[in-house]
Amino acid sequence: MALSKNKIKYIRALELKKNRKEENVFPAEGPKLVGDLLGHFHCRLLIATEEWLDGQTKVLADEIISVTPEELSRASFLKTPQQVLAIFEQPSYKITPEIINQTLCLALDDIQDPGNLGTIIRLADWFGIEYVFCSPNTVDIYNPKTIQATMGGIARVKVCYTPLKELISSLHHTPVYGTFLNGENIYEQPLSDTGLIVMGNEGKGISPEIEELITNKLYIPNYPQDRETSESLNVAIATAVICAEFRRRIQ
Amino acid sequence: MALSKNKIKYIRALELKKNRKEENVFPAEGPKLVGDLLGHFHCRLLIATEEWLDGQTKVLADEIISVTPEELSRASFLKTPQQVLAIFEQPSYKITPEIINQTLCLALDDIQDPGNLGTIIRLADWFGIEYVFCSPNTVDIYNPKTIQATMGGIARVKVCYTPLKELISSLHHTPVYGTFLNGENIYEQPLSDTGLIVMGNEGKGISPEIEELITNKLYIPNYPQDRETSESLNVAIATAVICAEFRRRIQ
Repeated sequence: MALSKNKIKYIRALELKKNRKEENVFPAEGPKLVGDLLGHFHCRLLIATEEWLDGQTKVLADEIISVTPEELSRASFLKTPQQVLAIFEQPSYKITPEIINQTLCLALDDIQDPGNLGTIIRLADWFGIEYVFCSPNTVDIYNPKTIQATMGGIARVKVCYTPLKELISSLHHTPVYGTFLNGENIYEQPLSDTGLIVMGNEGKGISPEIEELITNKLYIPNYPQDRETSESLNVAIATAVICAEFRRRIQ
Repeated sequence: MALSKNKIKYIRALELKKNRKEENVFPAEGPKLVGDLLGHFHCRLLIATEEWLDGQTKVLADEIISVTPEELSRASFLKTPQQVLAIFEQPSYKITPEIINQTLCLALDDIQDPGNLGTIIRLADWFGIEYVFCSPNTVDIYNPKTIQATMGGIARVKVCYTPLKELISSLHHTPVYGTFLNGENIYEQPLSDTGLIVMGNEGKGISPEIEELITNKLYIPNYPQDRETSESLNVAIATAVICAEFRRRIQ
């Protein structure tokens, strides 16, 4: 069965958040990523070259279409299409704030860059952070660039969009960490193995209404501490250094 | 003086490495970044809106052209042009391998993504790593995307392209660190405040000929250590976690 023009149009339209939301799906590409996601998410449509399909024992998808590399490139979001493209259903998780009392979670306050969000999901997966709460204005996790940047981490990390102010206000006796240029040296502060780490927007940092709710202000020291440097670290980089330090303490 | 078509053509051509190399220049954009670089690098040409120029007391540049926002957008590499674009001369540093005996340095073995390279320079700046050696096949540091991602770090971090095998072979009694999935837990290893940290290509990691020369193989532990996770961390993320740990030890 060939790839119809309508199918190509349907797939390409998923570049827009509006269409992904309406259809409740997201696209993913490449043997590694699609392999990681198959079995984790319901696959509505999978298009692949014969070469890829020949290498599979079983593919769980509502519809499978064998395509030529040329057909694939017409549907693909990548500069260099990679054998397989799949359309998965967006999962829906019911996450209650109580989870934050039991495990270490991340909250993202208006992260704007799709690559940053994907990289944060990937490192959350590495550091065993299972839940990431995103403010409603954070970039869409199902953006194709974001999904690619998670490198499969999206199969294991649960991402939930929710107003952060309400989420944090509902917590009791739970530490809420955030990084600030006037925070305390993270290496000299106690860190717990449960609670919430809030990371702020690329340009503006953590918003004032969320800052009020932070119980532990942290700072990643630069080196040497009296030297002129860039004013900040990239948000994904700062998230990584913080998560690594939380995990080092309890290992 | 208006912006001529030839000037626009000259600037836009600098998107290509070949042309940047021939002219020995690189472009940078935006008030923050250009402000950071002026005074550090010789500026051959600066084009800016009157609004930006009015806010400056003195601009050191061979040629300054006042432009309308529309003219600026025709020359700009950014989706949203930001008041000022400057063309700087590429610096040339004479760096001898002896520096690696005196201070902690980074070496990048075929990093391909412009954003990753820029992010690594930005975090090197934060962690006080003054010298970054790049293999000849590493993406060009003067790529506009890379320069933007350094967020001004390029004004302080010296980047030098050189064959890494020869560089490392010339060292004596100097630790050469690299991350490997079969490396030793970084938190259980001695780390020095001089030497070289080698980071590998996004897909392939450190090349076999360089791996042979690594004296200390490190590993960033995932959490919990027996759990299934993504196979690796993004290279800029791994660089950050490693540099932060080296600096934590001596602070």
